[in-house]
Formats: sequence, C-alpha cells, structure tokens
Amino acid sequence: MSNNSDNLDFFFNPKTVAIIGASESLKFGYTMTNYLLNSSFKTYPVNINKEKIFGYKAYKRISDIPEQIELAIIIVPNDNVLETVKDCVKSKVKGIIIETAGFAETGIEKYVLMQREIEKIAKITNIRIIGPNCVGITNFTNKFTTTDVEFDKLIEGGSISIIAQSGVLGNVVVDWASSQKIAFAKSITLGNKVDVDEIDMLEYLEKDPYTKVITLYLEGIKKGTQLLETLKKVSKPIILLKNGRSEAGTNAIKSHTGSIAGDFKIFKSLFKQIPGLFQVDNFYEMFDIAQIFSTQPLPRGKNIAIITASGSLGSLACDQIEQNGLKLAQLQHSTIKTMKQYSPNWTSVRNPVDLGPSMFATFKPAITALMNDENVNAILYIFAVPQKPLEQFSLTMIPHFRLVNNLVNQFRKPVIICVFGSRWTFDYILKDSVKYNIPVIERTDHAIKALKMMYDFKKLQ
Amino acid sequence: MSNNSDNLDFFFNPKTVAIIGASESLKFGYTMTNYLLNSSFKTYPVNINKEKIFGYKAYKRISDIPEQIELAIIIVPNDNVLETVKDCVKSKVKGIIIETAGFAETGIEKYVLMQREIEKIAKITNIRIIGPNCVGITNFTNKFTTTDVEFDKLIEGGSISIIAQSGVLGNVVVDWASSQKIAFAKSITLGNKVDVDEIDMLEYLEKDPYTKVITLYLEGIKKGTQLLETLKKVSKPIILLKNGRSEAGTNAIKSHTGSIAGDFKIFKSLFKQIPGLFQVDNFYEMFDIAQIFSTQPLPRGKNIAIITASGSLGSLACDQIEQNGLKLAQLQHSTIKTMKQYSPNWTSVRNPVDLGPSMFATFKPAITALMNDENVNAILYIFAVPQKPLEQFSLTMIPHFRLVNNLVNQFRKPVIICVFGSRWTFDYILKDSVKYNIPVIERTDHAIKALKMMYDFKKLQ
Repeated sequence: MSNNSDNLDFFFNPKTVAIIGASESLKFGYTMTNYLLNSSFKTYPVNINKEKIFGYKAYKRISDIPEQIELAIIIVPNDNVLETVKDCVKSKVKGIIIETAGFAETGIEKYVLMQREIEKIAKITNIRIIGPNCVGITNFTNKFTTTDVEFDKLIEGGSISIIAQSGVLGNVVVDWASSQKIAFAKSITLGNKVDVDEIDMLEYLEKDPYTKVITLYLEGIKKGTQLLETLKKVSKPIILLKNGRSEAGTNAIKSHTGSIAGDFKIFKSLFKQIPGLFQVDNFYEMFDIAQIFSTQPLPRGKNIAIITASGSLGSLACDQIEQNGLKLAQLQHSTIKTMKQYSPNWTSVRNPVDLGPSMFATFKPAITALMNDENVNAILYIFAVPQKPLEQFSLTMIPHFRLVNNLVNQFRKPVIICVFGSRWTFDYILKDSVKYNIPVIERTDHAIKALKMMYDFKKLQ
Repeated sequence: MSNNSDNLDFFFNPKTVAIIGASESLKFGYTMTNYLLNSSFKTYPVNINKEKIFGYKAYKRISDIPEQIELAIIIVPNDNVLETVKDCVKSKVKGIIIETAGFAETGIEKYVLMQREIEKIAKITNIRIIGPNCVGITNFTNKFTTTDVEFDKLIEGGSISIIAQSGVLGNVVVDWASSQKIAFAKSITLGNKVDVDEIDMLEYLEKDPYTKVITLYLEGIKKGTQLLETLKKVSKPIILLKNGRSEAGTNAIKSHTGSIAGDFKIFKSLFKQIPGLFQVDNFYEMFDIAQIFSTQPLPRGKNIAIITASGSLGSLACDQIEQNGLKLAQLQHSTIKTMKQYSPNWTSVRNPVDLGPSMFATFKPAITALMNDENVNAILYIFAVPQKPLEQFSLTMIPHFRLVNNLVNQFRKPVIICVFGSRWTFDYILKDSVKYNIPVIERTDHAIKALKMMYDFKKLQ
C-alpha cells in the first residue's frame, strides 16, 4: 500500500473486535463493552478472571479467541498493558487502541519507560497503535465506537470529524454537541500518540467521503515539519485549536519558560500561513464554526445582511462584521422597496433589517428579498424574541425554516441563526431548524468568524 | 433636593400607577397590565375605548382617576403619545415611562419632531421621563415591573443592576439570565432618552443599597464629558458594553464613516482609563462577569489554582490566565503532599490539579488544601465529566458545594465553576450550586477575565 493511512479503516469499521479487560462491573469501559457485545460488530470480551460477561463467553487471553481479531481495545490496568500488547502482537491483530491512562503523562519513570517499550513494538511490527490514555474511535456513520456514545441522542448524517488528544474531552465534546444538535462523521482521540498521530488521521480523513470539515485539537507536536506539510496538502477545511502550555509535556513548571511560549507562537504563525487552516480560541468556537462550514454553502463575497428583532444585537453584530474584515451589505433599492411594503411605518428598513415585533409577519418577504439581492452574500438572522410571547401565541418557525432551506438551496448563500434568550427559546428554535439544515448557535461572533473563514476558503477554489 | 437622581425612587417603587393604553387583548403591554392590576401596586388602567380591563374599571383619561398618580406608563400608539404626555403633565405625575416605539429611531421627520416636543416638556416641567422606545423599569426586590417578567422563574436576592437602552433586549437578557440562574437587583431600559439617561441612573444606582455591581449597555452618548465624570465618581464596579455603530444614530450608512469609528475608539480608550470600569465584548461576557463579581469575594492576588478532570481544558485555561496577565499559582509543598494522599498514583498533582476520573473522591481534600494554600488567591473549577456516569451513578455535588461555600466564607477567596458538557450537565451542576452562591458559567475565558477585573478592582481599595 502506498500510504500508511490507507490501512486505518479497521479502526473505524473492524470485522472482529476483542475488548481486553472487559468487565460488567460499573467501571471504565463498562458501557462500551455492553454496547459492542450487543451490536452488529463481532466482539469478544477478554478477562482473565471471568467466565461470562453480559451473558457472553469471556476469554482468558486474546489468543484463546477462535477467530482472527482485527482490532484489540485494551482497558486493563496500566501495569498490565505492556504484556497485553505483546499478546496482541502474537495474535497478529491489525490495530490496537490502548485506552488505559497512567503512562508518560504521569512523569513517573516506570510508566514513561513502559510507554517507550510500546512505542518500540509499534515501530518493529506492522501493527498500528492508538493511545495510550485516550478513548479511541467513534464512527458516527456505522455507529462503531470504543467509548460511551449515546447515538440515539445525536443527529445523523454529520460531516464534521474530530481529531483530539485527550480522552474525557472526546466524550464531553460529544455531550455538548448533542445539546447543540451538531452532527459528526468520525471522532478520534489519540492520547499519548505512541504510533498513530494527527498526521495519519489527517491523511485518512482527507480521503474519507463522509468527512467534509476536520476539527483538530492539538496539544504537543512531535513531527512539526511533516505536520505542516500534511496540513498544506489537505484540501478540506481544518478548524484548529492549539494548546500552548502542553508543549511542556508533563511538567507544568517548565511550560512557563519563555522558550516554550516562543515555540507556541512560532507554530501559531506558521499555521496562519496555511490556506484552508483556521485557528480558533476554544471548543465552543470550534464546533459552532465547523457546524456552519458543514451545513452551509460558501459565501461568494463578504457582504453580510442581518435580520433581527433587536436593533442592539444587530448593531453589535455590525461591529463584529467590521472587526472581522467583512462588510455590511448595501441593499439594492428594490430590496428595500419590497421590504417596506410589509413593514409598519416605524420599523427600520435598511441593513441591519430590524423587523421589531412585526418579525413573524415580515420575516418571509424580508429574507426572500435579501436572498434575491445580488449585493448580499450571506445572511445572519439574530433571533431575540422574549420567551413569553413565543409560549403565549404558540408561534411556530417551521414555515420560515422551510422557506430558508429552499432559498439556501436555490441561491447557494449561507444563512446562520443566532439565538439570544433563555435555553427554552434556544431549544425551541433548534428543534425545528435542525430538520432544515440551518445552523443555530448562541453567539454572533462565532457566526461572523465562520463567514470570514468560509469566504477565505471560497477564494482558494 | 441636592441631586436630580434622588428623585427617581418613584420609578422603582411607585405609590400609584396609571397604565395608559392598557388592554386585555394579546398585544404589547398585556402581560404587564395583567400583572400590575393583580399586584400590590395600586394600578389604574386607562383606555379611551374600554369600560373594564381584566375586571377592573378602566378610565378614559388619566385625569379621570380619583387619586393622584405618581407614575404613568404610556403604551398608546406613537401618534397619540404626545397628547397623552400632555395629559400626564396636567395630572402632575412625578414620572412617565413611554414604552411606545416609533420616534427619532425611525428617521421619519414627523416622529423626530414629536420626540423633540416631548423632550421640551421634560425640560420645562419637574416631571422625569424615561423613553420612548423602551420597556422601562424592573425592581427585582419589590417585584415592581413595567414589562413582562416572570419573577417566579428567577433567583431572588440579586445585586446586579442593568442600565440598557433597548427594549426587547431588556426582556431577553432577563430570559437568558433566568436560564443561567443569574439574579438581578434592578433593570432599567432607557430607550431614546428624551430625559432620564445613564448619568441619572448611575447616580441612582450608586446610592441604591441593593445594587453591588452595575452593568451598562451604551449605544449613543449625548453628554460625553458629564458621563465620564459620573463614571469616575461611581465606587461600585461597572461592567460596560459599548456599541460602536450606533454613534451614527438612525443612519446606518453614516455610521461607517471614519470619523464615527474614531469617536467610538476615543470613547473606548477614555473608558479604559477609568478605574473600576471594565469593558466587555458581548452580553454573555457581561452577565457572567457581573454574576462572579456579585457573588464572590475579591481575590487578594493574581495567583489562580485550577481543579479539573480534563487536563486539556485545564491547560487551555492556563493559556487564558497568561493572556489576561494573571498567574498560575505555584502550590506549596504541603498542598501537593496533602493532595497526593488522596490521589491514585497516575493523577497529576500540580497546578492545574487534574483529578481525572477520581474527581468525586478527591475533590474535597483537594479544594480544602488549595484554600489553605497562601499562594492561591482564587480557584477555577473546570467541570468536564461525561453525562452518562453522572446519570448512571447518580453522583451528587451537594456536599462539595456546601464545603466550597464554607471555604469561600472562611478564606474569602473566590471560586468559579466552569462547566463543559451537555445542557443537562450544566443544569445539573447549576441547580445545586446556586443554593451555595457559587457562580456556574460555560466559558473559562469569562471566568478568567472576571478574576482579572476583580483583582484590579481589589487594588483600588
């Protein structure tokens, strides 16, 4: 095979799986074991002390399993991991995911050396290893996972993939995203990276037909030059969050020396020069932006129209549009004329379009006129209606969202909804808009950053 | 009386109220009318076309009411407002709140002139006027409001007051805050400011015993020098959000000329020089920070300790601590020794304190040791536990929060909880922590900005 990353499919769609250290008591790996054993993925539990796990025959060692295993998931205590890896080598697995923590990250010599041993094994065999100190892989398309994912809470058909290092975070990100109805394609946590790293996974995701947008959370960087080369080659948009401190590896004190902060700054500026790579400051920004990238067409220009019922939020957004190097669209006279027909004398018919309390009546003609306006490349809809009238009048947005979806498909201009209000209001807008593929987020600044990045990405094509 | 703002109490606790334009049909003012008529505030509905409103006798004009009225709330259509104001003058009210929109903000000459007339009336009489184009006042302590507030959804005993200009926003902010369990003292929306402005209200809130923190949302500035003087005199912390574009008043195109952006920048830098005044970028930041200011003691130094179960979020927070000019606390050896006793060999006992999955067992000794550490001035607790184990094991944080509350009171060091996860997780932490007066927010950057501002504010004392 021409490329190492061509081999990685068995991590995402394994024919046979062994869970080594599987347990039915309520501890790490319990949910994943229960899920995989009862899934369509052919899974064998391995536990030296058990006869049965969740009613399935348990094997003492991986070599006892009467079938060739493609993927081994290791969740035994750290002291037993090295021996288990050696067993897997003998059994000729294709891939190993070591989820167990307690290696180099502890700073304790014994475990640092143990990790080094595992690293050597990966080098001298053909076996690919993910981890240790991670929660492995989730494939949201075929619903294979090596961690706890409640697939029924998630939206299907997502095209955002995640590469991250840390374990807990992988799960928590998915939790957060499920509340925001953000849909994923694949998620990969790499842990301490004895073998498989972000370079392998970037190459894999570049070819993955389900992945449209890549989100990358980077802590330590081991192969800087190669990483930069790979990032340049990837044709899909990459949203990057780079952590500064972790350059220091396991020592928090060292991490505050100037040289390390310097490295961080150098990387930040090197990353800035890579077209199609966009840096963000936190996870909220990362996934809001990825969600917009993954659901909306790219804007063909930088002229933004705003529709809102709150003049204040509208003009705060104008500040952010200017700060991000975008422009407030200058509406055509015909657009203003059309909108005026539907508005009370005292509403503001210019950009931002402030519909005031008449919003529910005037939204449809307003957004249709804006979509038809050649001077408008993207629309930001800032929803800020108090909860009470929404409840009282049982106002529904569904016909509006259906129209927006049609207009987006017809004109290929992105629309983003920003909601400011109670969580009730947010969920009320979210539950209907998601069916029409319209992103809903809380913060206008994220929406505007996304539009800038998408505009820059469009220019590359 | 020595000061105009001494007179403003009738806006917040009026002895008698008239609602002019009161209606029992489902339109603007409906909920407020229903609420006030059935409240302990002596309220008279005025409507030229009605005999009764919600079962109460309606009066044709304010002069028909058989009692002296202190506060008139005007919600008649814009064309009838001027005449109504004149009626109120004859009836010798102390204050008027004009909620009706459709004046200078429309840019239409007729309504610009009408507003100017009202402005003149305010100047030549002793009557104080708030508005037009606003939702007036809410006093969260005595539950008087001139807008729709669902008091039963809100936390009582708040000490944050809000001065804002726009109407809708006032209600939506309260909606949002109720989801975040942020408690308020007073909220004031000023609208087009024909008379009462932010200067009056800053002076009023400075003396208000219920207000500890002032949040100020500014659009246009009319009396710049006087505003700067007043801001300097206020001894309470002020969190300011300044809108740039609205300098342009009603014309969106003019607002993009260089001179206006210049004005905005000049104000931004003038504000920067005022001690105790802190500028923020959006409403989320504003109220998260105000909430922390209002519930936590001021830090006596800039050394921050972090407790978390997510190493990644911990080190991202370290970046933000450095960016904000704060420091990661260097823990005393005794602190580390104490924490080590309670931690598995592989958890990280340094700052950030990464408790990993052992968090629920080790949180109590860890936070106690950190509070006892003289090198620690404030604690950030980043909660990032997946939802599943929280549900599965019915883990409760109540004993932890009780301890935190005791420690905060004993050591006078601030504690902030940042939650990353699903909305379920956020609400799960929030519902218990609020009883113990511990702020819970989503974003570590807001927490760290708040600590920096509080540290700067502490230095002023």
